[in-house]
Amino acid sequence: MNTFGTLFTLTSFGESHGAAIGGVVDGMPAGITVDMDFVRNEMHRRRPGQSAVTTGRQEPDEVEFLSGIFEGRTTGTPIGFIIRNTNQHSSDYDNLREVLRPSHADYTYLQKYGVRDHRGGGRSSARETAARCVAGALAKLALREVGINIQAYTSQVGHIALDNDYTRYDLALTETNIVRCPDPEKAREMEELILQVKSEGDTIGGIVTCVITGCPVGLGEPVFGKLHAALGSAMLSINACKGFDYGRGFDGIAERGSEQNDPFTRTAEGISTLTNRSGGIQGGISNGQPIYLRAAFKPVATQLGEQTTLDIHGNEQTLKAKGRHDPCVVPRAVPIVEAMAAITLLDHYLQARASQRFAD
Amino acid sequence: MNTFGTLFTLTSFGESHGAAIGGVVDGMPAGITVDMDFVRNEMHRRRPGQSAVTTGRQEPDEVEFLSGIFEGRTTGTPIGFIIRNTNQHSSDYDNLREVLRPSHADYTYLQKYGVRDHRGGGRSSARETAARCVAGALAKLALREVGINIQAYTSQVGHIALDNDYTRYDLALTETNIVRCPDPEKAREMEELILQVKSEGDTIGGIVTCVITGCPVGLGEPVFGKLHAALGSAMLSINACKGFDYGRGFDGIAERGSEQNDPFTRTAEGISTLTNRSGGIQGGISNGQPIYLRAAFKPVATQLGEQTTLDIHGNEQTLKAKGRHDPCVVPRAVPIVEAMAAITLLDHYLQARASQRFAD
Amino acid sequence: MNTFGTLFTLTSFGESHGAAIGGVVDGMPAGITVDMDFVRNEMHRRRPGQSAVTTGRQEPDEVEFLSGIFEGRTTGTPIGFIIRNTNQHSSDYDNLREVLRPSHADYTYLQKYGVRDHRGGGRSSARETAARCVAGALAKLALREVGINIQAYTSQVGHIALDNDYTRYDLALTETNIVRCPDPEKAREMEELILQVKSEGDTIGGIVTCVITGCPVGLGEPVFGKLHAALGSAMLSINACKGFDYGRGFDGIAERGSEQNDPFTRTAEGISTLTNRSGGIQGGISNGQPIYLRAAFKPVATQLGEQTTLDIHGNEQTLKAKGRHDPCVVPRAVPIVEAMAAITLLDHYLQARASQRFAD
Amino acid sequence: MNTFGTLFTLTSFGESHGAAIGGVVDGMPAGITVDMDFVRNEMHRRRPGQSAVTTGRQEPDEVEFLSGIFEGRTTGTPIGFIIRNTNQHSSDYDNLREVLRPSHADYTYLQKYGVRDHRGGGRSSARETAARCVAGALAKLALREVGINIQAYTSQVGHIALDNDYTRYDLALTETNIVRCPDPEKAREMEELILQVKSEGDTIGGIVTCVITGCPVGLGEPVFGKLHAALGSAMLSINACKGFDYGRGFDGIAERGSEQNDPFTRTAEGISTLTNRSGGIQGGISNGQPIYLRAAFKPVATQLGEQTTLDIHGNEQTLKAKGRHDPCVVPRAVPIVEAMAAITLLDHYLQARASQRFAD
Repeated sequence: MNTFGTLFTLTSFGESHGAAIGGVVDGMPAGITVDMDFVRNEMHRRRPGQSAVTTGRQEPDEVEFLSGIFEGRTTGTPIGFIIRNTNQHSSDYDNLREVLRPSHADYTYLQKYGVRDHRGGGRSSARETAARCVAGALAKLALREVGINIQAYTSQVGHIALDNDYTRYDLALTETNIVRCPDPEKAREMEELILQVKSEGDTIGGIVTCVITGCPVGLGEPVFGKLHAALGSAMLSINACKGFDYGRGFDGIAERGSEQNDPFTRTAEGISTLTNRSGGIQGGISNGQPIYLRAAFKPVATQLGEQTTLDIHGNEQTLKAKGRHDPCVVPRAVPIVEAMAAITLLDHYLQARASQRFAD
Repeated sequence: MNTFGTLFTLTSFGESHGAAIGGVVDGMPAGITVDMDFVRNEMHRRRPGQSAVTTGRQEPDEVEFLSGIFEGRTTGTPIGFIIRNTNQHSSDYDNLREVLRPSHADYTYLQKYGVRDHRGGGRSSARETAARCVAGALAKLALREVGINIQAYTSQVGHIALDNDYTRYDLALTETNIVRCPDPEKAREMEELILQVKSEGDTIGGIVTCVITGCPVGLGEPVFGKLHAALGSAMLSINACKGFDYGRGFDGIAERGSEQNDPFTRTAEGISTLTNRSGGIQGGISNGQPIYLRAAFKPVATQLGEQTTLDIHGNEQTLKAKGRHDPCVVPRAVPIVEAMAAITLLDHYLQARASQRFAD
Repeated sequence: MNTFGTLFTLTSFGESHGAAIGGVVDGMPAGITVDMDFVRNEMHRRRPGQSAVTTGRQEPDEVEFLSGIFEGRTTGTPIGFIIRNTNQHSSDYDNLREVLRPSHADYTYLQKYGVRDHRGGGRSSARETAARCVAGALAKLALREVGINIQAYTSQVGHIALDNDYTRYDLALTETNIVRCPDPEKAREMEELILQVKSEGDTIGGIVTCVITGCPVGLGEPVFGKLHAALGSAMLSINACKGFDYGRGFDGIAERGSEQNDPFTRTAEGISTLTNRSGGIQGGISNGQPIYLRAAFKPVATQLGEQTTLDIHGNEQTLKAKGRHDPCVVPRAVPIVEAMAAITLLDHYLQARASQRFAD
Repeated sequence: MNTFGTLFTLTSFGESHGAAIGGVVDGMPAGITVDMDFVRNEMHRRRPGQSAVTTGRQEPDEVEFLSGIFEGRTTGTPIGFIIRNTNQHSSDYDNLREVLRPSHADYTYLQKYGVRDHRGGGRSSARETAARCVAGALAKLALREVGINIQAYTSQVGHIALDNDYTRYDLALTETNIVRCPDPEKAREMEELILQVKSEGDTIGGIVTCVITGCPVGLGEPVFGKLHAALGSAMLSINACKGFDYGRGFDGIAERGSEQNDPFTRTAEGISTLTNRSGGIQGGISNGQPIYLRAAFKPVATQLGEQTTLDIHGNEQTLKAKGRHDPCVVPRAVPIVEAMAAITLLDHYLQARASQRFAD
């Protein structure tokens, strides 16, 4: 199940240390100009080795588009693309051929498939998310045409958390620091914490908040295709993501219903709401207000210190990981969250067009 | 999009105040004995009017199976079923024909479809979840054959919360009280809170925790079909669900990676883990440990007091809801969470069978 | 796999001699007025017992709609419906409980599922197609709004065949005779042949031709969703259908390419073609010309005479079928072919809307 | 819609004259040894320029696998692959930038997407089928493990036809001549006809027959996923395919039911049938007998002579095609038909495993 989406889809492939990763984007609207600088910049935001708080692995992540784009514009046919794996320290992983790393996918992949590419986690590596960023960049280019904008940011690292109300921040500041946090003071604290954790050979978790503006009323397909269910599935499919909520989410459960109401109001443009506690979605359908959601990322399990573990034969082994990894995945998860949100939104935008009233 | 699942699917239909709700269960394994008492009991657990903490609406919710079962056993063909709507106080909703209830789906359905059944929320009513409980009951009967068990309970109502570690409770106590909480003391507190909120004409949110035991290693289809992504989508599709996490979830983000490791150990049965902070899923694939997850439910928006709102023409109206509703949806959400978990697990169990190694 | 379609879908259920058959139509455009007389008439055209050339089984086939229609119009939510089985001569089939009828689905269902409803073929009975006619009637009502019309007719029974060029006939004459053939003379011959075959306790095959007019340019999703591939799959899913072609089809293979060209011409409405040998589809996409296709139906295997066969234990048994069946399924297949064409066309109409250029 | 299949899927991409074509094979069983010589040979069979009866275009069609194969075996993860387009006479097509070739997909693609890659038909080129042959080769390697064998051959070119009964031929002779016909005498006649048609600058159609042996009982998912409906959809998705039938197909419609019965018989292995007029499928489910089917291919529309046609502005143009093409696609369609049959069979094999009885 390496395909995501219904009408706008990404089918991804590739292992961390194979020849290449890549994918096929299907259902891309025709006639969209592909801004290659934009695509490259999106890839750069996810790229390993971009700053002191990310893994040391260096990958240029150059995307080669193979089809579906003609003379700079999309043609409506599938867009195949590949990203060559160039910096493969496969020998870093020779000692892991038979060792099961705790809290990784080594054991489950082996049990499920009976065979696995042990190098760098193989298919279970977050390297796969590079393909999502390509698809996400294309989706953003299409969404831009219809006025939908997506912006994510780091809202928590360890115990250092922003306020849940995103309107209190200037999201334009997000890309001004390496943790991608729109609050410069908190950003500094987060950076320090990550560097400290890194120096300890440990890892730390955090939260990415994502805000979607310009979304028209009517996206979402009840009852199982509720817009937030699709967004939740999208986020939870990202490596290390352990939780999702939207609107008032987990924080809202201790409130009264009377505190969560979004009263209607009449504006020049039509019917709107005075508040947006619902998070832009009601009954699974977008209501025209900004959509905001959170994705929680665990501290990744890779440990640089020595651990005792088992090998595939059940024998005890001492594990000393040499692979490079992120002390905190959250800063690099920001563009991935945006990519998955963009893919989901475009998919639902197309679905909503299909179900538009015939009289329109 | 009223179909859920890939190989084991539920297609549901029906409005709150139409002739009937129902569905089609497809992909049900053949040869399973249908224990009708079990099905009836599952429906009873979700049924409105079952206790003082639920809505006063009375629906017997008798399921009529129309196909796919022959001489008491499933035949592998689709199982059609209906539940007649018998207690339709449609006149309760006459005053809502043109009124938009705040934080309900009235406005979004109207905008999306241009027409809506205003009676009791129509399709957006949680009455639709009765169909899920039928499918869930069938899924449970199949899962029982392979040793998979699913148990949910109320773990939080308002600010009254259980400890996140489910192993501290005797889950067999869950059904001994009307809030479905395995801690009798907390259960009493929760009940009191709900009754108080009800007396105020208000509502309150909460959390359902679900534990899945007996799940074999290997369920889940990377990368977009990760088992927890499917479970998340399942839960988020339930009315009023605003958040989902599993394993250490949102609580785990402030921890270090070294605190979340699940070291391997060798047991008589083979490889196991000493702890289960991962929540039974690694790399999107079940690892044989219990799966535990949480679904957060908001306080529902229906208010019994008077509110000022707009009608479909944008004119101000005074809304005084007369419909019956739950002061807290969580006790009745417990069986629905179980049903969606069962549907998801059986679907993935079948998918995993398909991808088993040929040499097996 | 009892669901057909991508955006407009039918999920059907039901056995020949169970409580009811029925289905769920999902993705129905909102706001369509449901002309119940039209639906009833469509059901009547498929109904058994309608004439001397069909089975004697009498079923009123009254459709009960349970959801998705409010005050006479579709709401965009799923339309659940059931048709009760009223005339179940189940005792006709008592002798078939353990007997395997040659060239029926008895053996394959038993082997696949290990259990089967032997009464009247159970799920493999053509009774299931009644659900398709309901969905087809709804699809036709939606297609009518956008000017797409579907008309099928009997073009061959046994060796009695019409010319392949449908434009030589007045299709309005189709429903003026019980074999549904627009050539009155051939219709008489076909009727005589069927009655003769019936008197011999035997059956005979034939062909249904279907013509779709008013289809806009652009329906069909390359490369695997070619419009004719979807139509082919739709037709081949009908009981007893053994072949499908479109345009010049099987007859065109012995021709030269130069004989099959459809030269372009300019008309007042834009670009058109002088001929239509392609059958209205080029590269899998409708080109605005009428689509015409053929579905070939075998003589059904049910025999009224005595046969020697095996039972489920492999023992020889003498089979003397008492069930009622059609001597030739073709006249009743006409509305079913139309229904499947309508479902397919509406599904692709919706898909094409989704992929429309953003600039439009 | 560039994905085919449910559990075993091919997602293909690529234009005739773009950088590369390729695809992603998902759901490939793990642990299958990938015989690269076999894959290469399958590609060679489809390759242009292989003989006097095919197009002169020369493409080495070297497949590069990028993922999903580790140390020579499949890992269960998606297999990405590309085939570079090396011999692109794009200048052959410069004169076609604005010209609409009759009976090609030029007009329909342009109308649907508003933009098109005019070089060599772009996405509508049969070059896309190379990706199918890669997926088909992988599917065959998996099917070989479970004893399923697929063999296609040219059974008709123009009016030169073999007998419909495939058992009258030694299919091992198929690859001994360039038209891929197992009857050496007819093969010579077919070759002569094709060369004659080629010399006239014209094209001719034909039929490919495909035989599947070793298929177990139970493949096929009633009612819309009937095995023959899936096979029909697979074949009709191949470029230039206009018709499909199986078993007695179109030829059987003039027969009586009594002539088409397949009486059961008891063999050492269990229940079998004396004849196989059904074509190995009953009620949409394989019955253990060989499956045989036919795919009809039209004479392709490309004409080497001069034609008058229109350009995209509706102006008359004289078209003189310079592109190289096949005078008869049937010899090269043989491996493509096999590939699509293999993909379909493996997909249904996996689906059938999922629905196996739990007691097994």
